[in-house]
Amino acid sequence: MYDDRPHLEALEKGTPQTGNRLLADVSLPAAVVHEAPLAHNLAWMQRFCESHGARLAPHGKTTMCPSLFQRQLAEGAWGITLATASQCRAAFAHGVQRLLMANQLIGEANMAIVAELIEAGADFYCVVDSVANVDQLVRYFTARDLRLQVLIELGVPGGRCGCRDTDEVMALAERIDSEQALVLAGLEGYEGVVHGNDPERAVRAYAWQLVEAAQALDKDALIESPEPLITASGSAWYDLIAEVFREARLGPQFAPVLRPGCYVVHDHGIYRQAQHEILERRPELERGLQPALEVFAQVQSLPEPGLAIVGLGKRDIGHDQLPEPLRRYREGDERRRPLPVAGWRVTKLMDQHAFVRLAEEEEEPGSANGRVRVGDIVAFGASHPCLTFDKWRRICRVDERLEVIEVMPTFF
Amino acid sequence: MYDDRPHLEALEKGTPQTGNRLLADVSLPAAVVHEAPLAHNLAWMQRFCESHGARLAPHGKTTMCPSLFQRQLAEGAWGITLATASQCRAAFAHGVQRLLMANQLIGEANMAIVAELIEAGADFYCVVDSVANVDQLVRYFTARDLRLQVLIELGVPGGRCGCRDTDEVMALAERIDSEQALVLAGLEGYEGVVHGNDPERAVRAYAWQLVEAAQALDKDALIESPEPLITASGSAWYDLIAEVFREARLGPQFAPVLRPGCYVVHDHGIYRQAQHEILERRPELERGLQPALEVFAQVQSLPEPGLAIVGLGKRDIGHDQLPEPLRRYREGDERRRPLPVAGWRVTKLMDQHAFVRLAEEEEEPGSANGRVRVGDIVAFGASHPCLTFDKWRRICRVDERLEVIEVMPTFF
Repeated sequence: MYDDRPHLEALEKGTPQTGNRLLADVSLPAAVVHEAPLAHNLAWMQRFCESHGARLAPHGKTTMCPSLFQRQLAEGAWGITLATASQCRAAFAHGVQRLLMANQLIGEANMAIVAELIEAGADFYCVVDSVANVDQLVRYFTARDLRLQVLIELGVPGGRCGCRDTDEVMALAERIDSEQALVLAGLEGYEGVVHGNDPERAVRAYAWQLVEAAQALDKDALIESPEPLITASGSAWYDLIAEVFREARLGPQFAPVLRPGCYVVHDHGIYRQAQHEILERRPELERGLQPALEVFAQVQSLPEPGLAIVGLGKRDIGHDQLPEPLRRYREGDERRRPLPVAGWRVTKLMDQHAFVRLAEEEEEPGSANGRVRVGDIVAFGASHPCLTFDKWRRICRVDERLEVIEVMPTFF
Repeated sequence: MYDDRPHLEALEKGTPQTGNRLLADVSLPAAVVHEAPLAHNLAWMQRFCESHGARLAPHGKTTMCPSLFQRQLAEGAWGITLATASQCRAAFAHGVQRLLMANQLIGEANMAIVAELIEAGADFYCVVDSVANVDQLVRYFTARDLRLQVLIELGVPGGRCGCRDTDEVMALAERIDSEQALVLAGLEGYEGVVHGNDPERAVRAYAWQLVEAAQALDKDALIESPEPLITASGSAWYDLIAEVFREARLGPQFAPVLRPGCYVVHDHGIYRQAQHEILERRPELERGLQPALEVFAQVQSLPEPGLAIVGLGKRDIGHDQLPEPLRRYREGDERRRPLPVAGWRVTKLMDQHAFVRLAEEEEEPGSANGRVRVGDIVAFGASHPCLTFDKWRRICRVDERLEVIEVMPTFF
């Protein structure tokens, strides 16, 4: 029988290794990040933030991939945003010192994780939106003799977490002010849950509300941190948040921090559409983000005219929207010649299979040059990269020759 | 900075350890399998198969959890079914000797994985449905000087993979018969893609079609394996497949193999409904399967009357259907007293958050005894266990006191 211990890391999907050729050596399906668009996106967003006088703390929950966190930090990111205590621990263990947990810290087991990080030297922030949670945090961190940096979350009626108005924010700030265990370090919001008939206008109004609430905290001297923050923005409206924060001339009182996550690999769905709208609003922005994440899978059966069954399923790719066939290759093709998939359409996704309806002229699949064959490799794009990354424990970073230049582990 | 190496395994979600109390020590959210219904389900399905004269090769893709594979084998399972070469490798490395890959083996990198398994002593089977794939397998396994056991897949028009009729099956069998590298070991089907106005009737008809195709192969002496198999069944129609295989009196020619997967933890959605229908068809079957898999998560905000935001998202639980709140506990409650969630309803699931609409009488959440509080722990059920297991690298197996009795790794 196998001795499993030495191979344990390689026992999940795939066994990519540096130097592997994607079209010949890698067990498919495999998740692939292309280096050229990745490098472009990293630089693009850093430049965008700097040109708006904002710091970048990319949301790390998107990828949970420390190799990408290191690329983001090397590019100039101020810190990494995360969603849970476990995510913060994984990031810190891989060299991320500044952790912005854009979420409430709930439960003693999670508080224990964060206490360890603070003791180990992390610059950690989380958000609060209720007296109940403040009381829990005070009890725990007082007992641990630690101080916790918190941002008050301002939400919107009908939204997700967060105080519902500035009065609630001020009352909570006063409560925090009276507690030795907590350090109020600023204000946090998330415009992704703002709705309205005119979402652009609603997002701007919300950004201004954040600014005003932050200024009110400052005016009442309720901020204790010497370097207070104001932070918002997901991946769809960061341009509006950045604009308002710039127009507000926050000056030395508040450092604006933007937190987009999906930009790093962009996508072929909702964020492509969002980016399209951003470039319409801001035509002066240069060539925008580029999709960098794909999943490669193989045609496994051509059982009927016009139908290909591909070895790609809900286990392998985000499925908020059905994935999109982008290109096709012949397995082992040294020239990596892309073959057409015009008219191909995923019509159904099961756990491990995709149903792909072929274009009409391919109704008679065969071995003629270029015609689809069993074993052909198809590159798929997806909407919403977060839910593709979390399907993989290892991501292949590839160069333009489709050779694996790095096998990047993830820590979901 | 942290030394990350020794902790690397514990750097993803959660850090459950044996002996941890689920309501006090475990970082939530966490995936939980309850021992009592698990043990019941393991025994129930084994007994079901034996009483129908069938072997059980549970689909392992559901859980990809070797601890559960070992429980299934210890209960009497004949082997484990899997969907991909990587899954087969993971199962074999953890002690599963007999691997039924109910899928085509596509791509040289995947064939290389299987060749290694066969060389290491695995009893491996996969399915074929095309001459193109047969040719690829023959080329590869001839070069490796190995013989590969294959089952021909019989599908249905409009279905997924598989030959579309018995003529195709017979032609493919003759092709396989002429190849030294391949050993024809029987016939495979999957009734889960059979549709029709009367699905029960359609599934029965399909099962009979499988029987007839198998008998035709036998009659023409095209089966080479000394122990030929006929295999079908997912988790929704296994009773009908088992009945037809029993009625067909396959005798020594074919060993029937059933492959349900979800039974091991059952569910709170589509399979609960399917089981309900099975027990209506077969009232003589004893007390049926019981849901054993839940995800525990904490209330993180109560921002508005009637709304709880819970730290549970698409990253944590299957979301083909919205998850169902089952019970609630107070964090740290040593008595583990279940509190009501009557009328609670998940209305939206984001990556890391669930929106839970509370019952009307809880419109004014507060600290009164039993009223929902920030930090309360909610147990959720989901539909389709496959897509909950794959969200977790570690599953907590707990006893009736909600203490962790095993931390079960998964290998997706």
